[in-house]
Amino acid sequence: MSSDTMEVEEEVRRIVEQVKDLHDSATAFVSSSSHEELSLRKRSSAVDASITRLHSTIVSDKHLDPKLFDKLEEDLQRARCMLADGDTSSFLPSKPQGRFVRMFLGPVNVRASRKDIQLKVKEEYNSYRDRTALLFLVFPAILLTLRSYVWGGCLPAFPVQLYEAWLLFLYAGLAMRENILRANGSDIRSWWLYHHYCAMAMALVSLTWEIKGQPNCVQKQKGVRLFLQWAMMQGVAMLLQNRYQRQRLYTRIALGKAKRMDVVWGETAGVDGQLWLLCPLLFTLQGFEAYVGLQLLRTALTGVVAEWQVLICGILLVVMAVGNFINTVETLMVKSRFKAKMKRSKSRAELD
Amino acid sequence: MSSDTMEVEEEVRRIVEQVKDLHDSATAFVSSSSHEELSLRKRSSAVDASITRLHSTIVSDKHLDPKLFDKLEEDLQRARCMLADGDTSSFLPSKPQGRFVRMFLGPVNVRASRKDIQLKVKEEYNSYRDRTALLFLVFPAILLTLRSYVWGGCLPAFPVQLYEAWLLFLYAGLAMRENILRANGSDIRSWWLYHHYCAMAMALVSLTWEIKGQPNCVQKQKGVRLFLQWAMMQGVAMLLQNRYQRQRLYTRIALGKAKRMDVVWGETAGVDGQLWLLCPLLFTLQGFEAYVGLQLLRTALTGVVAEWQVLICGILLVVMAVGNFINTVETLMVKSRFKAKMKRSKSRAELD
Repeated sequence: MSSDTMEVEEEVRRIVEQVKDLHDSATAFVSSSSHEELSLRKRSSAVDASITRLHSTIVSDKHLDPKLFDKLEEDLQRARCMLADGDTSSFLPSKPQGRFVRMFLGPVNVRASRKDIQLKVKEEYNSYRDRTALLFLVFPAILLTLRSYVWGGCLPAFPVQLYEAWLLFLYAGLAMRENILRANGSDIRSWWLYHHYCAMAMALVSLTWEIKGQPNCVQKQKGVRLFLQWAMMQGVAMLLQNRYQRQRLYTRIALGKAKRMDVVWGETAGVDGQLWLLCPLLFTLQGFEAYVGLQLLRTALTGVVAEWQVLICGILLVVMAVGNFINTVETLMVKSRFKAKMKRSKSRAELD
Repeated sequence: MSSDTMEVEEEVRRIVEQVKDLHDSATAFVSSSSHEELSLRKRSSAVDASITRLHSTIVSDKHLDPKLFDKLEEDLQRARCMLADGDTSSFLPSKPQGRFVRMFLGPVNVRASRKDIQLKVKEEYNSYRDRTALLFLVFPAILLTLRSYVWGGCLPAFPVQLYEAWLLFLYAGLAMRENILRANGSDIRSWWLYHHYCAMAMALVSLTWEIKGQPNCVQKQKGVRLFLQWAMMQGVAMLLQNRYQRQRLYTRIALGKAKRMDVVWGETAGVDGQLWLLCPLLFTLQGFEAYVGLQLLRTALTGVVAEWQVLICGILLVVMAVGNFINTVETLMVKSRFKAKMKRSKSRAELD
């Protein structure tokens, strides 16, 4: 046997030894860390439950001195933030993963184990929304421009269907990402998820809706045209919202008041200056969305275009408009209550 | 101050202390475990690289005694299995997550950290495919039956579009799950992912394809009818494949030869008895798929139905049929090479 051969044999033996060692360390590590993780999980949920219980005790206690009440509430709030924002956050009991995620991914865990990865997910979500908003503005703008100047007032079917397919994938992506953010502890309202499901259904339905051409293109395509105009406005609103939300998020992180996983889609709190621009725009959008929906319903019911797709799209648009409106108003109310409370405790502090 | 109030105050103080303690332990645990994880990751990839290097050294060494060669190869193979099947597997360098997953989920990690969760994902994937295969068989069967006995030979648009929408979501789910299995170390061939993307594109395109009715329903809907028939056959083949694959997987796990994450879609190795049934069926299916595709192409090119959707669907079907064929043949060849090698080493062992 040559020395080369012996060397190779020796090396294989060494590698096999190394693999065994590695296997043992990995097994030991996995078992010890899962032990420790379990105990952290238990402690976290116990403390979390205690905070909730104490909070309701304090709130229901009528004899409590108002000053003491505010102090205790603040202490509990601070403790809650420490739990939710620090390394403990990944051990807190999580919301169960939504049916939507389970349907597409199976039982895979989408919860990030580390705070820094959670933040990366959130950052990426923000930039995804920025890209999306731009396309939301540009895509229908191009379609409407070409319609006026190239296609002689009559949209061909293919580009519109391409747009609808894009909408389907876009809303599927948004629904998936927001479900994941929720699993990672974000406070996003569940309405926005339902909104995305409605929007997906609408995109799917409108794909099967034959785009009618000449003659009477202008009349037949009125619904499509209105929808594209609404989409452009939506694009502008999304860009503004994204800007606003980022600023608000950074402000709130700086103030230590927010869990960084909060997503606000049409929600509003803080950064008051831009609210004066954003709120009217949001309400106008919702009004216009309902108007487009009602137009479609009218067309479907008076029988000018007797297709079921028109009816379904009309209903979905009205549902989305109403849902958006209710949720925006609710958010504004939460915000104003929060502000009133802040003002109250501030003026009390000044009195002292 | 009442004793009740003092008690509440005391309790709040205690909770705040607990939260601080918990926060400190969590931080300590996260930092120490990520340290250890990093070192395990480094060791794993180093050992993995050494095994690959040694393997090529042994293979290229012409002077090696054949018996020693087999022994060393076996040692290396066993070491590799220990790495891939044990707790070490989660520390091995992973394939980068596909564009498809990133597009829908963002940078979230879909890799299971524990072997038992990986197996749960795999199990759930198998049962998802079982449910799917059944629907794959039943859905078109119902459509075709109703067509013959209720709808008088003429399919209405809505149920067909419902079926197409279902196909779109089904293939999106399969593509997502198989991407996730790949990220978890499965050896699934990348063709099957491309196949699902093609199938998604086809479902999307066929949604925009107006289902023509009377007059001449039989002639106009020939493509749809052929496609539904093919889908039924596909359902039967999927049920058989699932059965076969599960058995094969369990056999291979028992033999300690497989990483349990292997997915085989039309792949074949072991459990020879059923192969005689499965292989001809697969090839027939692929032939029929190509036939349907060519029929659609002929219709599109001779201008009976001059819609771009027909052309695209035809091309996609032919591409999928050819791809499936090539990949099935390649898998069979790998399998026969593997068998020949096994036979060779067995007869050598008997000679000794």
